[in-house]
Amino acid sequence: MSRTDGRIERGNRTRQLVLRRTVDIASVEGLEALSVGRLALELDLSKSGVFALFGSKQELQLATVREAGRIFTERVVLPALATLPGVGRLWQLCDLWLEYSRGRVFPGGCFFYEVIAEFDARSGAVHDAVLQSQRDWTAHVEGTIEEARAAGELLPDTDAGQLAFELVALMETANMISVLHNEEEISYGRARAGIRARLRAAAVDPALVPGS
Amino acid sequence: MSRTDGRIERGNRTRQLVLRRTVDIASVEGLEALSVGRLALELDLSKSGVFALFGSKQELQLATVREAGRIFTERVVLPALATLPGVGRLWQLCDLWLEYSRGRVFPGGCFFYEVIAEFDARSGAVHDAVLQSQRDWTAHVEGTIEEARAAGELLPDTDAGQLAFELVALMETANMISVLHNEEEISYGRARAGIRARLRAAAVDPALVPGS
Repeated sequence: MSRTDGRIERGNRTRQLVLRRTVDIASVEGLEALSVGRLALELDLSKSGVFALFGSKQELQLATVREAGRIFTERVVLPALATLPGVGRLWQLCDLWLEYSRGRVFPGGCFFYEVIAEFDARSGAVHDAVLQSQRDWTAHVEGTIEEARAAGELLPDTDAGQLAFELVALMETANMISVLHNEEEISYGRARAGIRARLRAAAVDPALVPGS
Repeated sequence: MSRTDGRIERGNRTRQLVLRRTVDIASVEGLEALSVGRLALELDLSKSGVFALFGSKQELQLATVREAGRIFTERVVLPALATLPGVGRLWQLCDLWLEYSRGRVFPGGCFFYEVIAEFDARSGAVHDAVLQSQRDWTAHVEGTIEEARAAGELLPDTDAGQLAFELVALMETANMISVLHNEEEISYGRARAGIRARLRAAAVDPALVPGS
């Protein structure tokens, strides 16, 4: 490996190290809590080194949102694709989301719940990135519903937007209650019961819903 | 009025002025964004005067949570009591909540959504105050459900905890989507449709649900 390649690889490793820490901090304290100085201190790196990799606090915040999105895709979106399109995949997607929240992939619970509340009423590039993540996720849930309907497993008059809104509401609220009350039995159980009821009502055959 | 009374009254007025501003700031930027210096500057008061009224940043944060709770009670909880116990009052309570959020009683939308996300994964007096507010609100929704069942308007096997969880989920998510996307038609409409469906399913007679 040439000297240049070695430098690039070290840079990438440091970048990953920093981002693994920033997603965790942001999930508990928000994206405003990120600072180049704090990260350099915590990770025993030079401030100029961290600065050289990200350039500005805003770039660090944007890279953190992208990294959280990558982890979320890896833990929730991709594994659900292992199940065939239909009610089973839709259930699997919700179940993986609840496990992502309950298992504290990020120590503060769902990363996006935290940063949406932080940036929802502001403007600028970070707000726009957070908005886009939420839009992509909702579109993915709606797409999974459309797919299940196209597979003949959901009633033809299913309103995908309405159903996606209700499923997302149950998931997000389980995360909120669980993190706030530091409990994990009641809230996730209620979310699962609600999701199961919504899917049974929308399915052409309630037996298609796992656990029914 | 004696000189002492006059001073107390001026103190109370200043306190109200400060808190009217802190609840607005916190609903957009969170409780950590509150500082005695910033408030003194924005409201053209002396820093020592603001400090004398609140004592510390934490006291200012706690007083802000209490003031937001007072406004919330005035706008949502009390007006719903004008309707007789039953499905009508439960609907009214949800409807008043959605109007409180949609009407931006606080410029950042629901005050509690913002500060729960900010303090959920922390510890300390502010976390505890926020937790208690959320617990009180959930208990109030559950109590309103129990009342409606006792009035013979909800099915005897209604699970009050489950129904309250689902109603709160629909309300909070409408607030989240509306503030983030800066829109107010789709999200509140979906929340209302979801709430109506839940109440129709739980009511002994679906005609008891307003708008059915």
